Amino acid sequence: MPPTPPFVTPQQLSAAHQWRYAVKAFDPEAKLTDDQRHALAHTLQAAPSSYGLQSWHFVFVTDPEVKAELQPHSWNQPQITQCDTLIVLCRKTQIDETSTTEYMERISEVRGDSLESLDGFAGMINTNVMSQSATAKATHADHQVYLAMGFVLHAAAMLGVDSCPMEGITPAEYDRILNLTDQGYATVLALPVGIRSVDDPYLAKAKVRFPLDDVVQFV
Amino acid sequence: MPPTPPFVTPQQLSAAHQWRYAVKAFDPEAKLTDDQRHALAHTLQAAPSSYGLQSWHFVFVTDPEVKAELQPHSWNQPQITQCDTLIVLCRKTQIDETSTTEYMERISEVRGDSLESLDGFAGMINTNVMSQSATAKATHADHQVYLAMGFVLHAAAMLGVDSCPMEGITPAEYDRILNLTDQGYATVLALPVGIRSVDDPYLAKAKVRFPLDDVVQFV
Repeated sequence: MPPTPPFVTPQQLSAAHQWRYAVKAFDPEAKLTDDQRHALAHTLQAAPSSYGLQSWHFVFVTDPEVKAELQPHSWNQPQITQCDTLIVLCRKTQIDETSTTEYMERISEVRGDSLESLDGFAGMINTNVMSQSATAKATHADHQVYLAMGFVLHAAAMLGVDSCPMEGITPAEYDRILNLTDQGYATVLALPVGIRSVDDPYLAKAKVRFPLDDVVQFV
Repeated sequence: MPPTPPFVTPQQLSAAHQWRYAVKAFDPEAKLTDDQRHALAHTLQAAPSSYGLQSWHFVFVTDPEVKAELQPHSWNQPQITQCDTLIVLCRKTQIDETSTTEYMERISEVRGDSLESLDGFAGMINTNVMSQSATAKATHADHQVYLAMGFVLHAAAMLGVDSCPMEGITPAEYDRILNLTDQGYATVLALPVGIRSVDDPYLAKAKVRFPLDDVVQFV
C-alpha cells in the first residue's frame, strides 16, 4: 500500500523546520544517496507552476571541476564546491505559443484527451500568458522558479537533506559554463544540497524569525 | 524526544506529490483543524528568505463575508468561498534601512548578540538590498513571497491539506478590502486551503508533467 495523507504530523513538520537552516559549511566528504538525489529531482519535476506550464529546467551538478568553475561566479561561497550536488534552477528563454502546443501534446499523451478538447485551455494560456511582452513572460517564469525553489527546499528538509538557497550568483556566467543559452535556458537561482559540517558555526545558532503575531494575522 | 531527520522517506514524499493537485472544488462543509491551520501559519513564519529579512506578511481569512467580498476580485473562482481558509501572501511596502535595524534588533533579542557585533551583516544588507531602487526592492520581495508560496504548498501536501495557488487576483482590491495598504503590506498571491470535494472533476485526472529527462539534467 502506498502512503496516504497525512504524510507527516504537525510535530514532524515543525521539527523539520527547526532542523533546516541555510548551511554555511557542508561536509565535503559526506555524500547524498542516489535515492535522495532522485527524490529531489522528482520533487522539482512535480512542483506546481502557473497553468502547469513548467517553463523551467534544473541542472544537478556533481562534477567537482564544474563546481570549481562556477564558484568564482557565486561570490566565492564555499558551499558551491563543498556540497554534494549544486542544483541550478533555470527558466526557459523561449516562451510562446509553441510552448502551449507542447504542453497540450503532453496533456493529451498523459490523459488521453484529444487535442481539440484542449483548445479552450490552450486559448486561455495564449491570451493570458503568451500574448505578454518577453520581459513580462521572463518575470512570470522567474516567479515560478522561485516557487519551485521553495517547494524543493521544503522537500529537502523533510528528507533530512541540507541546503543553502542562493541568489548571489552571476547567471550569465552560469549560462556560459553550463552551456545553457544554446539549450534555451537561463539561470535564475542556485541551491547547493548535501550534508552539513559539524564545524559550521551557524549550526548552533537559534533560528531568527519575527514573532508569529507580527507575520500572520487572522481575519 | 522530538522527531529527528529524516522526517519522511522518499516514498512518503513521492506519495504526497502525487496526492497534491491544484484543487478546483473544495468541500465547503469540511473544515481544517486548528492544528492544521496553525501548522501552516508556523510554516510561513519559518520559511527562508533572502538574508532572512522576512519582508512579508500573511493574512489567514476564514470570515465568510470577507471571502465573498474577495471572490469577484479573484476571477470569481469558486475556491475562494469554498475553502476553509484563504491565505493571502503579501510583501512589505516599506523596505529600507529601518527594516535592517528591526531585523538586527530581532537577531539580538533571539541570539543575545550585541547590535555592534551585527554591524557587518547590517552593512552588507544595506549595501546589497536597501540601496536598490524601490522597484527592484519590490521585485526582490515578490520573489521571496513566491518562495514562501512554494514552501507552504509543499508543507500543506505533507500535512494532507488541500490547496490551490492563485496568481489570478486583483491585488489592489485585496489591499483595499483587507485594509493592507495602511498596514504597509501589498498583496502578491492567494492560496485557498481546505479539503477537496469528492465531486471535483480534476480529482481523477492524472498529473501532467514533462518527462524527468526533459526537465532535469545531470552534469
